[in-house]
Parts: sequence; structure tokens; C-alpha cells
Amino acid sequence: MPKKGSLLTFRPDIKVVDATIRDGGLVNDFRFSDEFVKALYCANVEAGVDYMELGYKASKDIFDETKFGPWKFCDEDAIRRIVGDNDTNMKLCVMADVGRCNFKRDIISRENSAIDLIRIATYIHSIPAALEMVEYCHDLGYETTVNIMAISNAKESEIEEALQLIGKSSADGIYIVDSYGALYMEQIEDLTAKYLAMAEKYKKFVGMHAHNNQQLAFANTIAALTNGASYLDATVCGMGRGAGNCSSEQLLGFLKNPKYDIIPILKFIEKYMEPLKKSGVVWGYNIPYLLTGQTNRHPRSAIAATKEKRKDYLQFLLELDDKE
Amino acid sequence: MPKKGSLLTFRPDIKVVDATIRDGGLVNDFRFSDEFVKALYCANVEAGVDYMELGYKASKDIFDETKFGPWKFCDEDAIRRIVGDNDTNMKLCVMADVGRCNFKRDIISRENSAIDLIRIATYIHSIPAALEMVEYCHDLGYETTVNIMAISNAKESEIEEALQLIGKSSADGIYIVDSYGALYMEQIEDLTAKYLAMAEKYKKFVGMHAHNNQQLAFANTIAALTNGASYLDATVCGMGRGAGNCSSEQLLGFLKNPKYDIIPILKFIEKYMEPLKKSGVVWGYNIPYLLTGQTNRHPRSAIAATKEKRKDYLQFLLELDDKE
Repeated sequence: MPKKGSLLTFRPDIKVVDATIRDGGLVNDFRFSDEFVKALYCANVEAGVDYMELGYKASKDIFDETKFGPWKFCDEDAIRRIVGDNDTNMKLCVMADVGRCNFKRDIISRENSAIDLIRIATYIHSIPAALEMVEYCHDLGYETTVNIMAISNAKESEIEEALQLIGKSSADGIYIVDSYGALYMEQIEDLTAKYLAMAEKYKKFVGMHAHNNQQLAFANTIAALTNGASYLDATVCGMGRGAGNCSSEQLLGFLKNPKYDIIPILKFIEKYMEPLKKSGVVWGYNIPYLLTGQTNRHPRSAIAATKEKRKDYLQFLLELDDKE
Repeated sequence: MPKKGSLLTFRPDIKVVDATIRDGGLVNDFRFSDEFVKALYCANVEAGVDYMELGYKASKDIFDETKFGPWKFCDEDAIRRIVGDNDTNMKLCVMADVGRCNFKRDIISRENSAIDLIRIATYIHSIPAALEMVEYCHDLGYETTVNIMAISNAKESEIEEALQLIGKSSADGIYIVDSYGALYMEQIEDLTAKYLAMAEKYKKFVGMHAHNNQQLAFANTIAALTNGASYLDATVCGMGRGAGNCSSEQLLGFLKNPKYDIIPILKFIEKYMEPLKKSGVVWGYNIPYLLTGQTNRHPRSAIAATKEKRKDYLQFLLELDDKE
């Protein structure tokens, strides 16, 4: 695969997707104040971010509304409180999990919504259900992506089949999602090549969503973009489940398109992220996350170990092995 | 360049060099207790680490002995207190900075020393002085490497010339040193190719020493090794100046040679590194380090900002620009 672009040029197809509220919401049960979300929205607009993800479209039949902040559900009213008619160059997106979203009830037609893009998160075995959602949302007028999670646990043959199915769908894009933070750059390059071959055939784009278990989120995002991925997820200070994500300040400082500006993000960090961290909200690289990443496991054990402030790393590793 | 090796095989030419005491010593003025150094030595031996760097050979004419722990100077007596005759499979090394080491006085013949390898750290403009040290140490019986620091600030033509000079010297190896944590994987791949072309011609090896300003230390180490570098520096918990280094636990967990074992390092972290961190010794990624890395600057401003616990990141960035 020839590399796309160089370190001193920029590709206009690159889009930065801020996922702070959505992936970061997994850390604080989506309890962000309106002031916080509004300030992030303004910072993202100023920073040249292309899309901002406001949260999940989760079903209130499945999740107790009193146990989460509003961004778990992303009611149109809540979004409008922040963005009004979103009279900016930045588009808005939400994530909908297969099996966790009553999409036929909760997703309204695009002309009545501030949302532009619906990202359908799926495991590889539920691709048909994801594609039902894609077609539904597409018919309502939305842009859509299919985000295949936990890809480090999928077989090559499954990935090939999934790509064929998605290729023939109305999805605008397909995402590489390294949910476990287990993948190395070489693997991301191979996946990008595979995804891109399908995407180019069917005029779709490829996106990258990385996790930082092995401190490779930024590196893997660069690896994906260098090989042709164009939608790049980032979160401010890497806020996200477990070890978190590629950070906006890393990515915006790296990209060469002059539309991107790190300064509004630095200001936002000073005013909003530092107090959030001080308040006790915890995410980011540590040794338990490294160990689940290295061994290609779901981060849940490491999330528990982090909550308990465990420092008995060897015992933690032994327990990981025992659980299989 | 074809890649060397795959993710499931291992290359016997790979050597892991633990630089915890040397690069970590820059954080605590080399004030490690003998117990700490001895425990690390034992952990490294058990973990299959190939070389352990014990510190600097700094001149006591230049540095006040009372202001540093013993590993700034690495007197033979101090080393012997830890390693005796080093009757293990692990080799020992020290670093000697050009212009900061009275090598003709302080480096004794190898047969009387526990040290195996002397790593000569130099800026690109002082290569001739570095090579004088190389020849001196080589004649005393030591293995030697030339570690060209701050390479992100050197011109390609300077690097070419330096490589030609080093090629003809007695140095056993040459190191890529990303002192500022400014380089991306693509640049590391290019540098590795250049260094390796010289190294293969003159039967030398290439090493990699990364810094974590942009959370790319591990990624860049992988990039170098994938493209043919074989001596890989790591430190426990990434302990090292500023944003620190590629961590031993990342690297040992990644390498596939069954001689490497992460478990003794995890034990060491529990027993020694966690208390060290608790005692207030600070290193590792933060936003000021990211900003000096992104802008290819010496980390000194970020070290000062970290000491002062500055959170005014925008002002910090503006000051960085003002200093040029």
C-alpha cells in the first residue's frame, strides 16, 4: 500500500470526530453539565473539528434514566439546548448500539433533528441487525457509519464477510474500532488496507477509533490515516472508557490542515477538563489497562482494578489468566 | 525496506537495554538506594533483559558529588556493591556524555571493570570528540555505541556525514535518540533505514532510545525494531527525563522471545516503583511535554512547568513561541 499524504501536506478528506461526551460519558455515566457540553461544542467549532458526538441514543426501556446523565439518551431537546439549530460548519453525531437502541421509536427524521450522522456500533456477529439500523437511518436522511467493535477478537474470514455485507449497504463509512486497545500499528495498517479496499469499491470512507491501553491510540490513529483512513476519532485529554482514546490535543497538533487549531482545546482543558479530573473522574493509561491490552481482553477487569486502586499487578495478571 | 520479523516470531538479534537508573536518574538526581538498584538488577536478570545501564560516568570536576546520588558517577566500587562480579547473562553499561566525562581518568580497563558497554552520548556537532572516546574505550576492551542526541534537530546532510564518520570508527552500534520526543513513526522508519544501511555495511547494530512526549515512545520503538533496529532502550514505568521513555513492561510484553518475562518487572513495580512515585518523584506524559514534543523543542520548559504544576497550557505554548 502506498502511503497517503506526507508529514508536511494535508488531505482534505480527513475529518476529526470529537467523541469526548460519548466515550468520556462511559466514565462518568454521562453526567456532564450543559455548561460543559456547550463549552466543548464551542471549542470544537473554533478548533475546526468536523463532527462532535454528543452521546448515545440508548433506549429508556433498557436503561434507567435516573442513573445516567442526558447524553446517554441524547433526546432532541437536550441537544437543542446546546446547539440550537447548529448554525456552524461542524456536524453532529450520536452513537446507537445494536440491541440497546429503540431506533424505530427514538430516531426521528433528519429534517427535524440537529443530528447529521448516526454511528451504529456493533459486534461482528450482529452486522445484519446493524445494517437494518443503517438502512432505517439512511432512509430518514442521516449519514451513517458501521463501527465494528472488538475487532481484535474477530477472525479474518468474519471480517471479510462483514465487509462484503457492509459494502452493499447504504452506510457512508466503516470504522476500525480497537475496543481492547490490543492492536499494533502493523495490524491497523493491514485492517485499514482491507477496509479501504472495500470502501473504495463502494465509495465509502474508513474511520479509526483507538484505545490507549498500550499507549498506542495516537500511533494507531496515525497508522490508519497514513494508510488511507479519513475519519479520525479523538477526545479531549483522551477522556474515554478505561485507558481512554487518542487525544484531541495530540491529533489536532499533528494534522497539517490549517483549519485545525489546538488553542481552543487547550483553553477548554484549562477551564473544564482540569476541574473534571480534580473532581475525581478517572481515566487513562495504567498497568492493568496495559495488561488487558497486551493480552487482548475486554478492559472490564482493569476498570474494576482501577476503581479499587489495585497495585498488585502480578496478582491481577494471574487472575486475568484464570478467568479464561 | 522489507519489515524484519513478524508479530509472532522473534529476532535473536534483539537486545533489551534497561536504562531506568540512568535516564530515571535525571528525575531524582540519581538518588536511588542500593536496595533499589540491587532489586532492579535482580528483576532485570530474571526478566531476560540483555543490558542494564547503571548511570553516567560524569566527571566530579564538573559536577558536585554532594548534589547527586552515586549513579551520576558510577564509580567501580558503587557498581561492585550491587553486582559483585556480575556472574549473570546480563551485561552492564554506563553512559558517558561528550565533554562531561574525564574518560582518560575515570574509565579503567575493561578487565578490571564490571562494565561491558560504554554508550557515548553526543550532539551531532561533537561527533569527532565522541569518536575519540569510542576509540579510547574500544582500546580498553569495551563494547561501545554512539548515541546521537536531539536528532530531530539535525539536518539530513549532517546525519549522512555523521554516519560516514561513525561507520569507519570502532563503535559497535549507533543509536537513534529522540531526545525531544518529537519524531513520528514515519521519521523513525526513515532514520532506521539510513542508520541501518551504514550499520550493515560496517557490521554494526542500530539502537533506539525514545521519549514519550507525544505518547509515541513505545510506537517509535516498535517502528525502529520492525525496520531493523536491534538494541531497544526501555525503563521501568517509563521512568526518565520529562515525559519518560518506552516502558519495560510495554516492551517485554510485546517481544515474542520466550526469554523475556514481564513478571519480575511487575513485582519490582509493586515493591519499588509505586513507593518511589508516592514519595513525589514525578515523570511521564502531560500536556506541556506534548507541546514541546509537537513543536520539536528541548523539554526543559515543560520540566519547569511540571515542577510548578502549571495548568495554563495556552500561556505555556505562547511562551514557548516567544523564546525562539
